[in-house]
Amino acid sequence: MTDQNRFLLSEKDIPKAWYNIQADLPGPLPPVIHPGTKQPIGPDDLAPLFPMGLILQEVSQDQYVEIPEPVREIYRLWRPTPLVRARRLEKELDTPAHIYYKNEGVSPVGSHKPNTAVASAFFNKEAGTKAMTTETGAGQWGSALAMGCHFFGIDCEVYMVKISYEQKPYRRVMMQTYGAQVTPSPSQKTNAGRQALQKDPANPGSLGLAISEAVEVAATSGGVKKYGLGSVLNHVLMHQTVIGQESMKQFELAGEGPDIMIGCIGGGSSFSGFVLPFVREELKNGHGIRFIAVEPTAAPSLTKGKYLYDFGDMAGSTPLIKMYTLGHSFIPAPIHAGGLRYHGMAPIVCYLYDTKVIEAVAVPQNPVFEAAVQFANTEGIFPAPEPAHAIRVAIDEALKCKKSGEKKVIAFNLCGHGHFDMGAYDAYLQGQLEDYEYPEAAVMEAMKEIPAL
Amino acid sequence: MTDQNRFLLSEKDIPKAWYNIQADLPGPLPPVIHPGTKQPIGPDDLAPLFPMGLILQEVSQDQYVEIPEPVREIYRLWRPTPLVRARRLEKELDTPAHIYYKNEGVSPVGSHKPNTAVASAFFNKEAGTKAMTTETGAGQWGSALAMGCHFFGIDCEVYMVKISYEQKPYRRVMMQTYGAQVTPSPSQKTNAGRQALQKDPANPGSLGLAISEAVEVAATSGGVKKYGLGSVLNHVLMHQTVIGQESMKQFELAGEGPDIMIGCIGGGSSFSGFVLPFVREELKNGHGIRFIAVEPTAAPSLTKGKYLYDFGDMAGSTPLIKMYTLGHSFIPAPIHAGGLRYHGMAPIVCYLYDTKVIEAVAVPQNPVFEAAVQFANTEGIFPAPEPAHAIRVAIDEALKCKKSGEKKVIAFNLCGHGHFDMGAYDAYLQGQLEDYEYPEAAVMEAMKEIPAL
Repeated sequence: MTDQNRFLLSEKDIPKAWYNIQADLPGPLPPVIHPGTKQPIGPDDLAPLFPMGLILQEVSQDQYVEIPEPVREIYRLWRPTPLVRARRLEKELDTPAHIYYKNEGVSPVGSHKPNTAVASAFFNKEAGTKAMTTETGAGQWGSALAMGCHFFGIDCEVYMVKISYEQKPYRRVMMQTYGAQVTPSPSQKTNAGRQALQKDPANPGSLGLAISEAVEVAATSGGVKKYGLGSVLNHVLMHQTVIGQESMKQFELAGEGPDIMIGCIGGGSSFSGFVLPFVREELKNGHGIRFIAVEPTAAPSLTKGKYLYDFGDMAGSTPLIKMYTLGHSFIPAPIHAGGLRYHGMAPIVCYLYDTKVIEAVAVPQNPVFEAAVQFANTEGIFPAPEPAHAIRVAIDEALKCKKSGEKKVIAFNLCGHGHFDMGAYDAYLQGQLEDYEYPEAAVMEAMKEIPAL
Repeated sequence: MTDQNRFLLSEKDIPKAWYNIQADLPGPLPPVIHPGTKQPIGPDDLAPLFPMGLILQEVSQDQYVEIPEPVREIYRLWRPTPLVRARRLEKELDTPAHIYYKNEGVSPVGSHKPNTAVASAFFNKEAGTKAMTTETGAGQWGSALAMGCHFFGIDCEVYMVKISYEQKPYRRVMMQTYGAQVTPSPSQKTNAGRQALQKDPANPGSLGLAISEAVEVAATSGGVKKYGLGSVLNHVLMHQTVIGQESMKQFELAGEGPDIMIGCIGGGSSFSGFVLPFVREELKNGHGIRFIAVEPTAAPSLTKGKYLYDFGDMAGSTPLIKMYTLGHSFIPAPIHAGGLRYHGMAPIVCYLYDTKVIEAVAVPQNPVFEAAVQFANTEGIFPAPEPAHAIRVAIDEALKCKKSGEKKVIAFNLCGHGHFDMGAYDAYLQGQLEDYEYPEAAVMEAMKEIPAL
């Protein structure tokens, strides 16, 4: 046993390949269905939006996909990220449990998102894409893709939800500094935007609408522009497995392995990136690791949703995906963890939840911020509201160990820092945060709009 | 030669002692003078404000001062910090020079300030201090001391310049989350504050006034409260030498050493922490390293000031310190690098400048942000406006190497990230930044108020 706090790897330890769990699942993922033909879609159906390199990764059954050297070159700016033993938090909780966190907040944009943004930009560059389009809420994903595109000389067009564009300008500035063109959505640039503005010129925008704008621009560009998505899809989750692969090596340095692994879920990519390499071991050898996905009570797709075919976006313009869904028309309450406000869930996460490989739990906003403040006050770091969901459950599990006397090893993914979320901390300290319990009636209503197959 | 980007050390490499350059200077520092008696002050004169542990460090002639284990324990949350080769920046500049930066922005509060805040809180705790008072502008120093005090169970009272308190709430929230009591200055809590408000109820505050409030509260507390200062003083610079000591080990890993070392200067602590261990080698062996201190043209104390006895604060309530000064009544223009808006300079830095061991250069605001954006666009990271001054000069030196073909090794201290300064980036991108060239008339006026000795 070591007395170290931080377990660091050198650049040569950056994984050389992404791990693709599709190769190890007991059965295939349910096919993605074309909403018109009701038939499984093929690679060509996705070609207007994504380069073939990414489409092939999306359906690949290879266990590992090599990480191109230019992508690893950029990963070296911040990877490997530290795995840290939270000794001061353990002491504060007076728990026999050992608590570890993987700190993805050390990336230049402050989250795990560049792991896939850089890869996505690279494969687009290879395919000759001139510009990428995407949507962003408060700007986490948009700033990651802006950086990735800039590094590979691709133009980046971000449709940013208008109310965030106006009220949270800091991430917009970050994207613009990386050279991205940031447009408040709804805009006059697309049919989707114009229609929304015609109905209501004061429309504050929504993530669903911004997706529609970004997709429309790419789909109607004659192949010059492609669309970038930052979560949900198989290839995105695969790119994120650098997190878990590094963690596995770092636990070897720590001389112990996790009994419980915890991550927050919105689309599912940060959780998956952290746990999937361990899930592989679990499927093979059954060590008995518990994997806990933490969602907000305001958008509890795993714990309250149904496992059905539904659209990925609000407008119903994507293929149909089998996933735990609250209904694509469901609009989650305005919790500060904007990255967790999604009606559905990554198909891989859904498959693992359905087959009981992973667990899920939903937590309300105030206990989440209570945990965030406790973490800041012991470890110093301010977590983003999204990973604060994971911290809440990590602390709860550590307190159970205090009662039971068990020396469990608890690990969570700190997928981003909270430097752009201090307004949320302010609201919490002033007692102004709502908990937003499960909105049953709204979900029941949205479920009615899930298309019949 | 290695192809690494980042040179990391393990926790056991955190220095065990601070380096005190007073032991190695060719002569003693000029004494600090009591403004009333005009005699050198002794430790007892400082006792109302500082605990004896820190006062003894202030005047110590020991070459090394042991770092207490509880301080090293907290350093381990983020130290050792990385030394990074900026390969992408080198490539962009097409320079044969090698550029390195020490990244102090990875601390929980995002700057080098906790290196001394934690130490200061520790020695106060040892002395039985119940509360520490301090001032802060935009909040960099205040948040570092708030964290340090919280970790040692000391109350922290921060007087924050009112206009920043209102316009830049994010650092206030950080301090409050760490449990600090943050008061907008001028306040009704002190004579200094009440007098200012009586003259002008709408007084927006200034750093000088906030210092007066914080000092008054400590000095009139009957020893219960002490005052914390985040720069200028000898012991503060000494605490920061962990930066340079680590860098020295990291250059060994890199297989080369610096030819030019660059840092920004406001009070002088981040620059000093970075270079002083190398200055020691230079004084002893004369390798010919150039040390360049970079100041803003808006507050060019080394390049335009006079080496005279002057007050450390605006109100004239401190002892008289021999330093390069623009006059204690000089108010620098509102550049975004708030940490560099100081009329004077650390006595140790002044001594080294006077004896030509170090150089200084002043740069205006727009070229500084041009460098910051170039850095963000190549290395990904957004620097704070203060270290962007150092980046400007590092890039200039690298471009000189491009012309001359010299393969110099250039190193700078990235003493903080810019996540709380995105408004400044926005202003730069929109062409709204002023350069604020040297304000000769204002300085001439302020110089008249420097007291005669």
